[in-house]
Amino acid sequence: MNIPDKVINRLTLYHYILDEYKDEASEFISSTKIAELLNIDNSQVRKDMKYLNNTGKCRVGYNVKELKLAIEQTLGFQKPKDAFIIGAGNLGSALVKYDSFSNYGLNILAMFDNDPLKVGIKINNKEVYHISKLENLVNSLNVDIAILTVPRQFAQDTALYLANSGIKYIWNFVPCILDVPSDVKVWNENLIGNFLQFTHNNIDNE
Amino acid sequence: MNIPDKVINRLTLYHYILDEYKDEASEFISSTKIAELLNIDNSQVRKDMKYLNNTGKCRVGYNVKELKLAIEQTLGFQKPKDAFIIGAGNLGSALVKYDSFSNYGLNILAMFDNDPLKVGIKINNKEVYHISKLENLVNSLNVDIAILTVPRQFAQDTALYLANSGIKYIWNFVPCILDVPSDVKVWNENLIGNFLQFTHNNIDNE
Repeated sequence: MNIPDKVINRLTLYHYILDEYKDEASEFISSTKIAELLNIDNSQVRKDMKYLNNTGKCRVGYNVKELKLAIEQTLGFQKPKDAFIIGAGNLGSALVKYDSFSNYGLNILAMFDNDPLKVGIKINNKEVYHISKLENLVNSLNVDIAILTVPRQFAQDTALYLANSGIKYIWNFVPCILDVPSDVKVWNENLIGNFLQFTHNNIDNE
Repeated sequence: MNIPDKVINRLTLYHYILDEYKDEASEFISSTKIAELLNIDNSQVRKDMKYLNNTGKCRVGYNVKELKLAIEQTLGFQKPKDAFIIGAGNLGSALVKYDSFSNYGLNILAMFDNDPLKVGIKINNKEVYHISKLENLVNSLNVDIAILTVPRQFAQDTALYLANSGIKYIWNFVPCILDVPSDVKVWNENLIGNFLQFTHNNIDNE
């Protein structure tokens, strides 16, 4: 089933809440409580839940464990996706150390760089390989997702190299637009755009 | 004027394209070219441009320089916002080294941490202060935006501390939901949600 982007985003946020809630005494959580924590509308929460199966809904709210599992099943945390990080710089290193990824269905298998000082080291137990090894490892490990964190001036050339090496999905953290063959999908992680959304609609308009 | 989040996001992406385009020979860029690079619909691009003034539109397209300036004016790059980073760990360090922020209206003035080994060092020329200095510096530098990158288990307590210190806007990179007083606004930078959107609507549904 196709789920709108904003719903997927909110389902992840609900999961964060449920994850913290497991230490609480209560077995149930109401949509009102979730809505309050996220500062959104109660009816929105109830609408989003319709995308899930078996939420454990009853008179007093949702069963925390069942709702958590329902989100995990719908968003595919149990079918983890393997990915490589391209660029073992600051951002790449921060992402490989971001332990929450593995709990949410993203397995980072290795990193790639062209800096001889970085090749061969391990960051958070993930080896940094020379970028020339990429095609081999794409094939042998059957990985088609790359997380791109190289410096901006190398991003376009690297993206084409990824495409030629068999990568099909690029999660692009570089603030630039990549021109790639049409069988490769790019997702721009637009941190700056996110910040501008936040400030424009909160600060600038006040 | 209120601009929908998705439009702000795309306007930022258009700006990336124009920024690269300044080295090209042509003075003009068509909405078709922009749409093609982003793999979106031409009519979408033209619709988004209606939020801007003075795009330099003419028969052959938009004037690159004028369109770039129009986006900068609308999104407020000329009125930069000052912010602090809370947490001088991997992600905080990566963000403070993310030079593109300053081009897009975000000035990071300093970092804060409670680790004595980090306090006093400089990362990308920004000093790391002890977190106890926050309230003083919020007041003396008139900063009300904090970028939160502390470990998950400290996020909630730190958020309350930020609120008590006069911070009004929290850009939260920690995968958890913060419970803060109602006069503080939280923007959740939900990296995991973004990844799940990408994979759910591309990979899982194929």
